[in-house]
Amino acid sequence: MSTRFPTINPNSPHFFFTIFSICLCLTPIITNSRTIRTITSSSHLSDDSSTTYLWPLPSEFTSGNETLTVNPNLSISGSGNGGNSVIVRDAFARYKSIIFKHVGRSKFKFSDLDYDVGKVNVIVHSSDEELQLGVDESYTLLIAKSNGLSIIGEVTIEANTVYGALRGLETFSQLCGFDYGTKTVQIYKAPWFIKDKPRFAFRGLLLDTSRHYYPIEIIKQIIESMSYAKLNVLHWHIIDEQSFPLEVPAYPKLWKGAYTKWERYTVEDASEIVNFAKMRGINVMAEIDVPGHAESWGTGYPDLWPSSSCREPLDVSKNFTFEVLSGILQDMRDIFPFELFHLGGDEVNTDCWKYTPHVKQWLKERNMTEKDAYQYFVIKGQEIAISKNWIPVNWEETFNTFAEKLNPKTVVHNWLGPGVCPKAVAQGFKCIYSNQGVWYLDHLDVQWDGFYDAEPLEGITDSTEQKLVIGGEVCMWSETADPSNVQQTIWPRAAAAAERLWTSKEAAPISNTSETALTRLQYFRCLLTRRGVQASPVTNFYARSPPSGPGSCYDQ
Amino acid sequence: MSTRFPTINPNSPHFFFTIFSICLCLTPIITNSRTIRTITSSSHLSDDSSTTYLWPLPSEFTSGNETLTVNPNLSISGSGNGGNSVIVRDAFARYKSIIFKHVGRSKFKFSDLDYDVGKVNVIVHSSDEELQLGVDESYTLLIAKSNGLSIIGEVTIEANTVYGALRGLETFSQLCGFDYGTKTVQIYKAPWFIKDKPRFAFRGLLLDTSRHYYPIEIIKQIIESMSYAKLNVLHWHIIDEQSFPLEVPAYPKLWKGAYTKWERYTVEDASEIVNFAKMRGINVMAEIDVPGHAESWGTGYPDLWPSSSCREPLDVSKNFTFEVLSGILQDMRDIFPFELFHLGGDEVNTDCWKYTPHVKQWLKERNMTEKDAYQYFVIKGQEIAISKNWIPVNWEETFNTFAEKLNPKTVVHNWLGPGVCPKAVAQGFKCIYSNQGVWYLDHLDVQWDGFYDAEPLEGITDSTEQKLVIGGEVCMWSETADPSNVQQTIWPRAAAAAERLWTSKEAAPISNTSETALTRLQYFRCLLTRRGVQASPVTNFYARSPPSGPGSCYDQ
Repeated sequence: MSTRFPTINPNSPHFFFTIFSICLCLTPIITNSRTIRTITSSSHLSDDSSTTYLWPLPSEFTSGNETLTVNPNLSISGSGNGGNSVIVRDAFARYKSIIFKHVGRSKFKFSDLDYDVGKVNVIVHSSDEELQLGVDESYTLLIAKSNGLSIIGEVTIEANTVYGALRGLETFSQLCGFDYGTKTVQIYKAPWFIKDKPRFAFRGLLLDTSRHYYPIEIIKQIIESMSYAKLNVLHWHIIDEQSFPLEVPAYPKLWKGAYTKWERYTVEDASEIVNFAKMRGINVMAEIDVPGHAESWGTGYPDLWPSSSCREPLDVSKNFTFEVLSGILQDMRDIFPFELFHLGGDEVNTDCWKYTPHVKQWLKERNMTEKDAYQYFVIKGQEIAISKNWIPVNWEETFNTFAEKLNPKTVVHNWLGPGVCPKAVAQGFKCIYSNQGVWYLDHLDVQWDGFYDAEPLEGITDSTEQKLVIGGEVCMWSETADPSNVQQTIWPRAAAAAERLWTSKEAAPISNTSETALTRLQYFRCLLTRRGVQASPVTNFYARSPPSGPGSCYDQ
Repeated sequence: MSTRFPTINPNSPHFFFTIFSICLCLTPIITNSRTIRTITSSSHLSDDSSTTYLWPLPSEFTSGNETLTVNPNLSISGSGNGGNSVIVRDAFARYKSIIFKHVGRSKFKFSDLDYDVGKVNVIVHSSDEELQLGVDESYTLLIAKSNGLSIIGEVTIEANTVYGALRGLETFSQLCGFDYGTKTVQIYKAPWFIKDKPRFAFRGLLLDTSRHYYPIEIIKQIIESMSYAKLNVLHWHIIDEQSFPLEVPAYPKLWKGAYTKWERYTVEDASEIVNFAKMRGINVMAEIDVPGHAESWGTGYPDLWPSSSCREPLDVSKNFTFEVLSGILQDMRDIFPFELFHLGGDEVNTDCWKYTPHVKQWLKERNMTEKDAYQYFVIKGQEIAISKNWIPVNWEETFNTFAEKLNPKTVVHNWLGPGVCPKAVAQGFKCIYSNQGVWYLDHLDVQWDGFYDAEPLEGITDSTEQKLVIGGEVCMWSETADPSNVQQTIWPRAAAAAERLWTSKEAAPISNTSETALTRLQYFRCLLTRRGVQASPVTNFYARSPPSGPGSCYDQ
């Protein structure tokens, strides 16, 4: 063994940093001898500006001024307990196909030796692939040229879990750009050293599949695009008053509430969506919104309606209602492994309960008001969910109305406006931030900077309380969104929120964002289109409106 | 050999019809013994109506009233000279993945013997895979249950070329539907006998990549979706005054006219698009629009501009202009094998020529008016294209202005309004119909029935003249379309035109289309969304506007 290199155990948690230190030492003797063509390349990303074209921005990074070429035969070398996981391997294959969309057809015939980067080393310490809230998504990414003396060089991603490795691969893919002059994939501003982790554990996107049905192909497109922005929770608002698309084996008539027999999700479809999402490090949080927003339940089981003229809220007076709710949750337990389950509880108008004789009688016997019955329903729903080992999430009305009755485990989901998370965390509840004034995607008059400037911790100064805000979520309600326009309504604005949720407060631009964020976001929007995502122009006043005239993607 | 079955040569052109006759004879003894579950299935397409959910409608078909189940392990058996072509094999793999999006996860465990359909026989007589105007796209499709006595049963597609087989596979895929009750793929209304061929040889979609740039991934999505509607020509309007995205090796500064260094197509990109399209039976007709709509050429070569204040039309007075045009066409000849090449020629405002001293002098020396010079440019362009073995296509202004000078091979491309093709074919020119009042996709106020009711042969009664109308094309100009909204602007209206261009006049509904076509088109729109295409609601007044409220895909 050469005395120049100390003994190193690749499975050691310190492996990466040790190696990086060595590389730094060797930097002065890295030469450009094999990359003369890259130096003479006609166009470099780095020519344009000092902007770092990454979205979301990593929490810590340094870069240099070298340009490296990447071998189209890029290979992966996994190590550590999780480095050879199929999750990592599949992700590498996906990113390879993204990175090399344009090459494999270069007019220049290079040998492998002509490239600066030929291998991605992925070190994953843990073999545990459970994907739950707070899973370690941190990673370190080193990109430095091998000069034959350095042990590593090339690209190294080190992470504690496979999900951290996925985030690192996404970042790596964003650093690779196709150079039209040399027709090679290049990495600009190397060497890169990136040390990154999410600011919040929960970075969600709500998708409402009741107001309009989304075929599984479209849902997969959305999940895939979420991974590009490092979002990690698909909040699946499956059912609402308009339609009940999901198969529930215990109550097989429920999906008679689907719009048509073709606008449905089988159990297998749902499982496939969950698995597809997991492969991208994304959890699926299912929602069964009760007792309001549930009219469609009664299409298959009219007994769930208090009466034919009072179709929601669901009939609080019948045991059958809770048997069905329990049956649904039991069946869903097999599909959705995520520890959070959303029980809705929003916008419950109980007026028609009191006009329905048997419900009125039931209330009277128990000396309950309708408001009491609303609380009774929600709490009973929570108990059922908890009995099935779920942590309940409820929309903020439950907290606003009877906070003291909610199970202490409850995650309060803000939506109506600002100021709710501060109150919730002050009472010890966890909270998800989705202030509709800034993070509702169906609010088409909220521009990118409205999304970007939102702050989930606004009004919360105590650090213990801050930790109770598990994150935030942008909401894609589907009254006027469907498969034709959902992606253009989601993107690029969801990306603005994604950076707020991912990037550490210290690293994220907070002022002068039209300089520090807009150019990067426009670049990211164009990156999305290159990957086949229908992301809208960034600077339109109304979301998803067409470009106002001819022009470059990077200017619109 | 059993005397029940005559000797049959599968390579005989009569094979299919012989077999079909046998099958018809056997029909009475086909029983439902193996398909009891399909009879008890909860939902059938055929329950709803007598509608044939095919788009575009085949020219001849008969159907029955049986429901067949399709084995998820569906295999292909190719025969004939072209039946094992990679074009057929790849298409089969694509369609298999479309057909079985939902299965492979059925809760029912069937053996192969439990399915009615386990194999698709594809008979292609010719091994010739050249894709040119008028290539034989006819096919016959038989779907009938095998009962162990019939020789074929199952599914047979017979075609003269691989491209006919592709059309047959598309039709077959549309007949396969997922049944949510049994969780199997089923074919309703079998047996099917379909004998189909296109009404017009040229069924195009124009895509303008100059007003906005479309990444290759997006162009591929568009091509893929075209194949679902049996469109067969992508008219690639590559360059216009705003940007010059294409690499031209002979004049490497031309793509300096791209919006940015990232909004470009390499020669290899263009070739990949052509190949991707060919695999789907789609030709790519390139357009170099001259002498107007060409300002972007001068970014790299300012000499092409008459002056800095007169940037188009291109400088008619310089040999260099025609050297560059010839160089472009020479380089493009290697990329685009299609025999038609579009030379534009529209909207040429020659005013600034006469204010440019050296051009004015050049005109004076030749005793030419500016109109003469416009003609001179177009004719010279045609000569260059013809010398490179191309048939020139020109927008109708060239015909309207100097019909008698146009090369007789010219294909006149109508756009300004009705009545042009009748005049062109009366003078012996071929014609493409794109009347902007009905077939311009950027005209957002033209609804689906405006597209559907258009008739390319309007005003042409003579059958010889009718044959000169090679087809039609819907045009997706991109002033306000970009990757975020292009598919929703194209679909579903392009499909309405596609049926007009594919389905024989006798078979296509011409009256009461809100009964005979709308339901089918809504179904096709939802089929597109299932395949991941962002097709808009059918019945909105303005194209690509969002759904007006919650509802089923099939009603909007």
